[in-house]
Amino acid sequence: MAGNTFGTMLAVTTFGESHGPAIGCVIDGCPPGVAIAPEDFRADLERRATGRSRHTSQRREKDEVEILSGVYEGRTTGTPIALLVRNTDARSKDYADIEDSFRPSHADYTYWQKYGIRDPRGGGRSSARETTMRVAAGVIAKRWLAEQFGISVRGHLSQLGELQPRGFDWDVVEDNPFFWPDASMVEELERYMDALRKSGDSVGARVTVIAQGVPPGWGEPVYGKLDAEIAQALMSINAVKGVEVGAGFDCVHQLGTEHRDEMTPDGFLSNNAGGILGGISSGQDVVCSLALKPTSSLRLPGRSINRAGEAVEVVTKGRHDPCVGIRATPIAEAMVALVLMDHALRHRGQCADVGEISPRIPSQA
Amino acid sequence: MAGNTFGTMLAVTTFGESHGPAIGCVIDGCPPGVAIAPEDFRADLERRATGRSRHTSQRREKDEVEILSGVYEGRTTGTPIALLVRNTDARSKDYADIEDSFRPSHADYTYWQKYGIRDPRGGGRSSARETTMRVAAGVIAKRWLAEQFGISVRGHLSQLGELQPRGFDWDVVEDNPFFWPDASMVEELERYMDALRKSGDSVGARVTVIAQGVPPGWGEPVYGKLDAEIAQALMSINAVKGVEVGAGFDCVHQLGTEHRDEMTPDGFLSNNAGGILGGISSGQDVVCSLALKPTSSLRLPGRSINRAGEAVEVVTKGRHDPCVGIRATPIAEAMVALVLMDHALRHRGQCADVGEISPRIPSQA
Amino acid sequence: MAGNTFGTMLAVTTFGESHGPAIGCVIDGCPPGVAIAPEDFRADLERRATGRSRHTSQRREKDEVEILSGVYEGRTTGTPIALLVRNTDARSKDYADIEDSFRPSHADYTYWQKYGIRDPRGGGRSSARETTMRVAAGVIAKRWLAEQFGISVRGHLSQLGELQPRGFDWDVVEDNPFFWPDASMVEELERYMDALRKSGDSVGARVTVIAQGVPPGWGEPVYGKLDAEIAQALMSINAVKGVEVGAGFDCVHQLGTEHRDEMTPDGFLSNNAGGILGGISSGQDVVCSLALKPTSSLRLPGRSINRAGEAVEVVTKGRHDPCVGIRATPIAEAMVALVLMDHALRHRGQCADVGEISPRIPSQA
Amino acid sequence: MAGNTFGTMLAVTTFGESHGPAIGCVIDGCPPGVAIAPEDFRADLERRATGRSRHTSQRREKDEVEILSGVYEGRTTGTPIALLVRNTDARSKDYADIEDSFRPSHADYTYWQKYGIRDPRGGGRSSARETTMRVAAGVIAKRWLAEQFGISVRGHLSQLGELQPRGFDWDVVEDNPFFWPDASMVEELERYMDALRKSGDSVGARVTVIAQGVPPGWGEPVYGKLDAEIAQALMSINAVKGVEVGAGFDCVHQLGTEHRDEMTPDGFLSNNAGGILGGISSGQDVVCSLALKPTSSLRLPGRSINRAGEAVEVVTKGRHDPCVGIRATPIAEAMVALVLMDHALRHRGQCADVGEISPRIPSQA
Repeated sequence: MAGNTFGTMLAVTTFGESHGPAIGCVIDGCPPGVAIAPEDFRADLERRATGRSRHTSQRREKDEVEILSGVYEGRTTGTPIALLVRNTDARSKDYADIEDSFRPSHADYTYWQKYGIRDPRGGGRSSARETTMRVAAGVIAKRWLAEQFGISVRGHLSQLGELQPRGFDWDVVEDNPFFWPDASMVEELERYMDALRKSGDSVGARVTVIAQGVPPGWGEPVYGKLDAEIAQALMSINAVKGVEVGAGFDCVHQLGTEHRDEMTPDGFLSNNAGGILGGISSGQDVVCSLALKPTSSLRLPGRSINRAGEAVEVVTKGRHDPCVGIRATPIAEAMVALVLMDHALRHRGQCADVGEISPRIPSQA
Repeated sequence: MAGNTFGTMLAVTTFGESHGPAIGCVIDGCPPGVAIAPEDFRADLERRATGRSRHTSQRREKDEVEILSGVYEGRTTGTPIALLVRNTDARSKDYADIEDSFRPSHADYTYWQKYGIRDPRGGGRSSARETTMRVAAGVIAKRWLAEQFGISVRGHLSQLGELQPRGFDWDVVEDNPFFWPDASMVEELERYMDALRKSGDSVGARVTVIAQGVPPGWGEPVYGKLDAEIAQALMSINAVKGVEVGAGFDCVHQLGTEHRDEMTPDGFLSNNAGGILGGISSGQDVVCSLALKPTSSLRLPGRSINRAGEAVEVVTKGRHDPCVGIRATPIAEAMVALVLMDHALRHRGQCADVGEISPRIPSQA
Repeated sequence: MAGNTFGTMLAVTTFGESHGPAIGCVIDGCPPGVAIAPEDFRADLERRATGRSRHTSQRREKDEVEILSGVYEGRTTGTPIALLVRNTDARSKDYADIEDSFRPSHADYTYWQKYGIRDPRGGGRSSARETTMRVAAGVIAKRWLAEQFGISVRGHLSQLGELQPRGFDWDVVEDNPFFWPDASMVEELERYMDALRKSGDSVGARVTVIAQGVPPGWGEPVYGKLDAEIAQALMSINAVKGVEVGAGFDCVHQLGTEHRDEMTPDGFLSNNAGGILGGISSGQDVVCSLALKPTSSLRLPGRSINRAGEAVEVVTKGRHDPCVGIRATPIAEAMVALVLMDHALRHRGQCADVGEISPRIPSQA
Repeated sequence: MAGNTFGTMLAVTTFGESHGPAIGCVIDGCPPGVAIAPEDFRADLERRATGRSRHTSQRREKDEVEILSGVYEGRTTGTPIALLVRNTDARSKDYADIEDSFRPSHADYTYWQKYGIRDPRGGGRSSARETTMRVAAGVIAKRWLAEQFGISVRGHLSQLGELQPRGFDWDVVEDNPFFWPDASMVEELERYMDALRKSGDSVGARVTVIAQGVPPGWGEPVYGKLDAEIAQALMSINAVKGVEVGAGFDCVHQLGTEHRDEMTPDGFLSNNAGGILGGISSGQDVVCSLALKPTSSLRLPGRSINRAGEAVEVVTKGRHDPCVGIRATPIAEAMVALVLMDHALRHRGQCADVGEISPRIPSQA
């Protein structure tokens, strides 16, 4: 309610500032019996981590997750799971220059206007550092969805600046630092990013997340629609300016005969809906995309004002990503997984008696 | 929580099916003292109404709003405001044919899969009829925002199929049945729609909503971001497949130097952010867009299945809109207004002591 | 959140003022498939009704419930159930005298202090008229609990002024207008109430509610404890000043060896816990009591102030109950049933996989 | 929603098991600018601490609070405040014996029935250890209420077994280990407790909390009543079986003329209401009491069952309090303070425009 909790039956509360002592989260509502160990978070945190490649910010956190509660003898107990990550590589001095100024297109100015006080170190609460805990919580959600329903939630970069994949292969997505589904383009991306970093500028990106295996029937009318909550979840990620489900904005110029997903006893014939109809999952792949803006922490000077209201020139000297969208893939996966798990629990609560309904058709004919 | 309530400090709960006895809503949390009369809802309900022009569905509801509670001697009392609209023009027979089949790309199949029971009359709860109550609730929110802060929340159609406005003039938006900001194109739109209706097909649309006068500081970190809740609000509207704030998906190919909104003591120099930074309003115009899919209630036959799981051909005989997006403008305005009012109340609760912060720069230089 | 909604997975929102056009509620989260018809509400509304006997207020409402939504062909559909009751017997003139004064021990003064505006007719929103909708919602909860789990939720008056039942027989509770479990005392109660009414004074009462058949495991740690939510539910009923679970305040002078409920393979040996341990149901009867204050709407003049801040003498001329506690029995049952159903749904959501756990011992040895 | 969060505008989420690595909480919604340092928690944690005197459990935690987030340069920033306390004195071996049995009248059996898994060390999540974090959060609430409104929230023991204070003096409450308001009885209490501890038995207690200086107008109709949320808050404390506001259960045998609190321009003439009318504060002292059961962790053997369902005899060997109610005073204060602060924020959000209303009369004539 005060803004730092996400979800209802599965409620994730995060806390922590970029350069404070620690960041963490409390995951409330996870069913008992899920096997969880500290090392289970490593892979996804590494995927998200700053410093994974030369194309992302050079901050190097260990990001060791400590499980503070909710797990006994390696299994969740149904009580709140608290996770803690200490901030070990917080070079606050890098930010000393900008304590007194508002970086353009950052939350500096708006936090100041809201609270009249702000923690300027590394962006404080507005830093993407917070997303570490989303990814950690998402690890549990992804595991539970996989174990209970065989659901996979995977993402990839679907656009970087003007570049779009020409081919598509899930198998190569994890083999390159861009989560890019077309191996033939990786060198081109490397060159593009190198030139961009050299220029001191940044660029936007698009990420796509696909959840396979979601059973039909998840989602609530009418404000708790599955896609409405996915939209909130994705738009709440730092730097996101747009969210699409299925055909997304392309549906604006589609005809009804073109957009509609016809059904046959053998399955759906297309998936413009992105697996969601009337806010409820249809059994098809849940497909959604998000647009991430280019970071505004630039080495190229920009006009702004300081706390005295005077014009200043702002240059970011600290570490930064020329394309924050690259690291957003695991974050977006996590958010989609959390929304799905929450809806699974709610659906089970309300409709457990209903059981499986016929007729149920395949995801794709 | 069970999905039919929207908002926190200002909580709107809607109820009702398309062809049930009535639809209604309960608005909880409206401050006392707001002047409200039944006729205040008329204009916006008329803007949304089916039957406004030949380009929208021919269902003709009177849509008379009865105020059941929360208003005494013409003013809100702080207690829940219940609004009721009787369904008077519900021709259920039109839908008798499809009771046994699932219309492709409708919620028919997903509601069935969720609940194992559904009210097929006019789409039941999944019908856009529900949005009537959003518009009604939005009337109160728009009034309160205007009176307390001088905020205006206005929308217009920004794309219809492939057509985009060539000029822009707020003053003409309400003068044509399309909420179109370019008067010179209205005839072209008329012809386009006539041809479309004749063909039996439908088309998508894009709507843009702009809130002017929003003070800086509204929005909560990090899941209660103003844009995150706007995204949920807009995505929860029937037929919406995408939501953008500010530059939206265009930011994917923007450079940081291009996207960032520089600030000067005289104001912001651009508004790619759409008035929201770090999830908190900046004082600039809040700008958001939504993509609406073409309706799938078509006179052109489509393949589907029936409740026995057999292949059937479905044709919609009832009234329908060839472009549901046209009527979405007042609905989208209402949702944005409700989100803003909710955030205003929350902000006031938490930050009332803070008062107005300096420096505060103008919306636009 | 704004105060007029109760519950989470099962969320009941009520609206309406005592002398406004109508009162009603929206029940969101009820599973699909529950058989409900307008006449199903009659019995419990009658039990609660004013005018049931000469011992309660003489207002005579028909209290006809109209089902506005959420039910199709006699069964719930999973969508919000809206219920409406028109106010037909609202004699506002009775209250004209007191519009300008604050009745002592009423909400008149506090509503005025909160909102700066109030609907004085019959107490407006603060009237016990609101509890009609609690009872209506409770009918659905009681039915669902009975059908799904064989749970019964029943209440009785357990004290009236100084009078306490000497014997106990569930079978006679519904046979007298006091919900009194000792038939031999009914005449005594009649005389007591007649004398009280004659005197113009009023008296308090205690109500006890017992839920039998609640399976172990319902309730959430640590703020969502079953007893914590029952306490909120019961304390939210008009005129309630105290709530107890199990031994209640008697536990203050009990020794641990006296209070503890020992367990054997054949069952529990006592039930001082009232069926709840650590906030979670134990499988024993859930037992709770509430204290209701004597109404302060008295024919005997009392000192107060008016809106000008001047001393006045207030006399209530309208109808009133000399003991509001008598009618509280069905209201308290309804609130307990709503809490139980909400917890059942939540438990099912989170712990559906867990299934039935052994060892499970009987409620009572 | 999943049970471990309390409050709405001010939401406190706690986590942690008695013998896990740590306990902690996240306080979301605290306004910016409140001065908070780690040492500010010491006094109240000490008041609650185990080991304060020989009359309470001998577990000796340091209970050092670490502030992990939400505070910058000694002041709250408006972002979530995370507090952490490491568990340093957790002697799990003490509990090894009972891992396989269910202690009678403990949550052992019910947690097992709910989750099918439980952390038996020290009661796990059901331990009163959790209340440490309530007290810590309450420190912030008490400070804010005092600074913003001059409110004090204080408690005292009002009954211990059969013993009740004969005199009353706030000034002595903090001078004895019992929070007892009658200094002349302290020796008697010492003797009583010594004998009790020797016997191996335990006893119940009653605690009373009084909030002075609460302005009129806080509280929401009708489920968010101030007293309803206080009831939930207090009943959620371990071992609580009853809650009263004002006259509480005494109102059952009061007459209306006796119970009603008459008003004069010089103030209220009594306070049977406990400062709350219609769920909204009246400006009088908010007065509430709670009943705490005698702990069932006894050295005297009790009958129970084990996980195989066999009859066993259970004896608690670990440390325990012969009267858990003694330490409940600061916990109850904290809960009342949290409810009040939450309502203050909500009231400010909804009714900020209303300002102070006349006539406003003094708390007491």
